[in-house]
Amino acid sequence: MRRYNRTSLLRLLHVGGPATRATLAAELGLNRSTIKMLVDGLAGDGVVQERVPRLAQGAGRPSLLVLPQSQAVVVLAVDVQVEHAAVALVGLGGQILGRMSWNLRGRQRDPDEVVCHVAENAALLAQDLQLRPVAAGVSVPGVVRRSDGLVHDASNLGWRQVPLGERVGRVLGVPVVVGNDAEFGALAEYVRGVGRGASDAVFVSADVGVGGGIIAQGSLLRGSAGYLGEIGHMTVRPGGRICHCGNEGCWETEVGEAALRRALGLPDGSPRGAIVAEMRELQRDSDPAARLGDYVDWLVLGLVNVVNILGPELVVLGDLFTTLPMPVVALAQEQVRRRSMVSRALGGVRIEKSSLGVDLKLLGAAEAAFEDVLASV
Amino acid sequence: MRRYNRTSLLRLLHVGGPATRATLAAELGLNRSTIKMLVDGLAGDGVVQERVPRLAQGAGRPSLLVLPQSQAVVVLAVDVQVEHAAVALVGLGGQILGRMSWNLRGRQRDPDEVVCHVAENAALLAQDLQLRPVAAGVSVPGVVRRSDGLVHDASNLGWRQVPLGERVGRVLGVPVVVGNDAEFGALAEYVRGVGRGASDAVFVSADVGVGGGIIAQGSLLRGSAGYLGEIGHMTVRPGGRICHCGNEGCWETEVGEAALRRALGLPDGSPRGAIVAEMRELQRDSDPAARLGDYVDWLVLGLVNVVNILGPELVVLGDLFTTLPMPVVALAQEQVRRRSMVSRALGGVRIEKSSLGVDLKLLGAAEAAFEDVLASV
Repeated sequence: MRRYNRTSLLRLLHVGGPATRATLAAELGLNRSTIKMLVDGLAGDGVVQERVPRLAQGAGRPSLLVLPQSQAVVVLAVDVQVEHAAVALVGLGGQILGRMSWNLRGRQRDPDEVVCHVAENAALLAQDLQLRPVAAGVSVPGVVRRSDGLVHDASNLGWRQVPLGERVGRVLGVPVVVGNDAEFGALAEYVRGVGRGASDAVFVSADVGVGGGIIAQGSLLRGSAGYLGEIGHMTVRPGGRICHCGNEGCWETEVGEAALRRALGLPDGSPRGAIVAEMRELQRDSDPAARLGDYVDWLVLGLVNVVNILGPELVVLGDLFTTLPMPVVALAQEQVRRRSMVSRALGGVRIEKSSLGVDLKLLGAAEAAFEDVLASV
Repeated sequence: MRRYNRTSLLRLLHVGGPATRATLAAELGLNRSTIKMLVDGLAGDGVVQERVPRLAQGAGRPSLLVLPQSQAVVVLAVDVQVEHAAVALVGLGGQILGRMSWNLRGRQRDPDEVVCHVAENAALLAQDLQLRPVAAGVSVPGVVRRSDGLVHDASNLGWRQVPLGERVGRVLGVPVVVGNDAEFGALAEYVRGVGRGASDAVFVSADVGVGGGIIAQGSLLRGSAGYLGEIGHMTVRPGGRICHCGNEGCWETEVGEAALRRALGLPDGSPRGAIVAEMRELQRDSDPAARLGDYVDWLVLGLVNVVNILGPELVVLGDLFTTLPMPVVALAQEQVRRRSMVSRALGGVRIEKSSLGVDLKLLGAAEAAFEDVLASV
């Protein structure tokens, strides 16, 4: 029971940040003496510190403020994307204490090379910061089995059947959880982003591929046997372009990076930077939706399907989708409302851009790692 | 604690049927004396009976068999469909103790009429069987808010903003839970049908409309604010037929009752019986999939999307879909495997027909009603 309460308190501080003893007591439904005992224990272990709040409210002796010590519990977050990878050390409370990133081109994209660079950069980072992670979370753009971190298929990386969890675990010597990037994106948005407090939310993001993560009734869905669904591979355009997955007219082929490049009239293979620059230009256009042509139609169609199937209160747009001009997002929201009974029943489903920027997947991977760690601090 | 154990034991008997004290002890992780106390209590209240098992196994005194008494706890199940409605009294253990059904045509489909007939037939049934239900579950083909049973939109019934939960509750005088028919279908399959034990399953069914229910990580998804998603209104055919929902090319318009009628070359408005008879004929056809033409393509496309988005281990086909010849189901399963990365990762997703027949939604509505009841028996 004491262990359970300690974990609950730690989770509250980790997610919500510093709080007074009185707040902790109220939120956990525990009495003040139990809170004192728990906080004293955590303070003795160096996991939290206490101090008198600067602005004490009300009469009487102010309730002490409890601050999580970010360096006391540290995890390693790894974000493998198609064009680059990053590692970060993330402390209790979700703060990124340090990060390193590198490009992935050609041979660097081989699983061997990736594992080797992850280990190397993680070691450098730990040395620089004089910190030792106790667990790791790894985000990968692909179909991943959560139980052991087997990457079944990460087509955009050219990976198949890579036992990534096992291999990273071996070189790092700590427990490793591997997950799909959109799944971890959804987790990050739910814990630290615009999805905070939304018990039913869908996160969809466009990179080279398009992925999705689903929060339903306050939990991250994992799919059967730990394989998350692949929202990017729903068919939106029967008879459309052939997708690398073997199907045709997938949402990914119609709204992913290559599709956005086509919509903007950029030559094949233009770099990500050119797309982002062009999208920034588009912000000044009087009718950006018209400029993007049927790209917007396929975007909306996929969103309508996601809303009709899952009935979320919120859809969060990530990665390249965050470059969409606000009028396009507003148009999508209006179209979804018009074309979805569920959205109408709900009085409209909110569609918002992710606010966590480039750190999104690092933060999600860190949260996945923290899930098990907090129970044993 | 004792209340919690009593509810757990009752749920086990309700879902799994008669079991020996030894089995109950093992499944609940309780010792024999606790089980004895709980069973004695329930027997004293007339909720269970005990008897010596007919075929005792092993040496020593046989463990007593505990039998739930179906008439001891009874709920009313109501199934409102587009063409007809039914009420049933369902006892502890899930047995249907009696049922009545009637047609819904023209004015009979008005909410007032439906509520009135539900009350009348429920009273007749209770009188005939000399049983009094303690709660009710109502299944409706529409978008339903679970918290209070408001039917936001049941287009195929012509209903909008009908406070059905409140109205049925008033005439019956017992707690009422109202849900979407496909949602309750999924619940019935999960508790009593082919979906038993499948922690991630999707139930899709074709009636006049097409609906879906989702079991994820062992729980029935309810969607945000209690509004379940509407799988039937995902777009599968952009630019396709206009749907009553305001959208076009919905799965429902391509694989619902009207679409099946068209695929079979039956005239508009031919009755359900004609469709079922024609589908029975089709069982003898050497290539039934070819005969159904692009109906099968749209069926497969919707299934691929459902599997890609949700990653279930099992898809259960209900209602009119159960009339599909087995070669068509096998073809769909093979196509889903070929066209879904998630399915390939899982080594294939099973696609099976519902086994619960016409009672499916009654059983699901009953289970929804039992959920709260079992905790207070």
